[in-house]
Amino acid sequence: LPIHRQNFPRPLSKLNSLAVYGPGLIGGSILRACGKCFPDLELRVWGRSREHLEEVSRALHGRCFTSTDAVAVATGAEGVIFCTPVDFMEELAQKIAHAAGSARWFTDAGSVKGSLVLRLKKILGHRYLGAHPMAGSEKTGFANATESLFQNSVCILTPTAETADETQREVADFWRSLGCRITESDPFVHDQMVAQVSHLPHLAAAALVQAVGRDAFSVAGPGFRDSTRIAMGDAEMWAGILLENREAVLDALLNLETILQSATGALRSNDRDCILELLASAAEKRSQIF
Amino acid sequence: LPIHRQNFPRPLSKLNSLAVYGPGLIGGSILRACGKCFPDLELRVWGRSREHLEEVSRALHGRCFTSTDAVAVATGAEGVIFCTPVDFMEELAQKIAHAAGSARWFTDAGSVKGSLVLRLKKILGHRYLGAHPMAGSEKTGFANATESLFQNSVCILTPTAETADETQREVADFWRSLGCRITESDPFVHDQMVAQVSHLPHLAAAALVQAVGRDAFSVAGPGFRDSTRIAMGDAEMWAGILLENREAVLDALLNLETILQSATGALRSNDRDCILELLASAAEKRSQIF
Repeated sequence: LPIHRQNFPRPLSKLNSLAVYGPGLIGGSILRACGKCFPDLELRVWGRSREHLEEVSRALHGRCFTSTDAVAVATGAEGVIFCTPVDFMEELAQKIAHAAGSARWFTDAGSVKGSLVLRLKKILGHRYLGAHPMAGSEKTGFANATESLFQNSVCILTPTAETADETQREVADFWRSLGCRITESDPFVHDQMVAQVSHLPHLAAAALVQAVGRDAFSVAGPGFRDSTRIAMGDAEMWAGILLENREAVLDALLNLETILQSATGALRSNDRDCILELLASAAEKRSQIF
Repeated sequence: LPIHRQNFPRPLSKLNSLAVYGPGLIGGSILRACGKCFPDLELRVWGRSREHLEEVSRALHGRCFTSTDAVAVATGAEGVIFCTPVDFMEELAQKIAHAAGSARWFTDAGSVKGSLVLRLKKILGHRYLGAHPMAGSEKTGFANATESLFQNSVCILTPTAETADETQREVADFWRSLGCRITESDPFVHDQMVAQVSHLPHLAAAALVQAVGRDAFSVAGPGFRDSTRIAMGDAEMWAGILLENREAVLDALLNLETILQSATGALRSNDRDCILELLASAAEKRSQIF
């Protein structure tokens, strides 16, 4: 999808520099989109390895400041976005809070929000607004980043009572400028929702793959391919997400197990009505979602 | 995908007439492919409703004999294929066995093979060879049938000791002529394999949809969309398949439940290594399948 410039409204005309922490799939896609569409925006990138940062710099035709020094990247940035694994964000925020004293806003792209938002707002205050862009792929890393990743994806913002109005407006505009459709949620409600539509399906896809004997590989068709695609996601990243959100994931998982147990009972007793009801109501419900 | 004529070898030059029972997605796609690529092949079509058959006839430009009389359709056919729901095939076979006395071969497109093959071979003898083309979609019916449905899909043939060599060769050639890659399996081993890669994923997709609260719909992204697409399949058809194959589906389901219970325990005890091992081994295994 080409990025339509009309999707990129005022906010970034006001933003002179953006610091991106973690140029993986998400951070890299933000950089590519900004590099392409906002020629006057200064891009500052922090990553853990020099080689990785050199790849980023080449892709952006040198149009960025890159460093493995988190403080150096924060210095002078007006907007800051954390795209690292969620369990690393608090440490980063603490490290750069002082150097980013003049930043107007901070956001992040973490898949889990509840406790993370509490921890980051304690450090960054009213200038922080959590976000979760529902975009991505089983492919990870900067090599797979694309400028169009966020086009028409949903971005969930998770404001709290302390979030400044100005922060809320500017962060929403930033994500909107990448092509996102904005929605808002309480951070903990967010976690329950994504446990159901994202985290549980990841766990279930992995379990489905593990439930298949290697002999059966040869007959796997497009249904299996699609329903287990997300099982190829980055294991380290997803283990972090599942554990960070384990209360909500456990709730969703118990719900799934109850449904599967009921199906097991229905198959055992040859209860056609019960199986049909499960399949028919799921088909009807699923067809309303997209 | 265009159908390449070089994929269509000798067999159908020898086949003068084909009877198709059930012009839904599978039967309809066979008819469309044959109608396009084998101008000299007489197509005979049985369906339950006149209107439905008229739709088929229009799509094939009148180039077929259609009837709601199963016996009339069988008369004179050299090849016969059953594409109805599996629980209807035995009755049909019994009805047409006499009229199809001169048919060289019979096959079917049922998703479950074990007990079906036993029942059909009792009626049709050495001229019957079960088949399961691993093609399809959550969309059903003739309206969604396409001539390219089978291109590059796997078709599992399930011969028994009684299957004639000539039947095996001709039925394999027939499916190959539609674009299938042929593989063979014992009928009961087939059922265990498809329980794992097809039937269980369908049940799991339905359960995943049912485990989602309606509030969470709004944040469902591409991962959820793909992993639950098959939950939109025809509920009546899938209830029939799951119950027909319930022994093997129950084995696969118990396997899945054990894995999910282990994940539940790992999340409860915050056991990162166990979750990481599940995700990493699933990712590695899944990436080998396609």
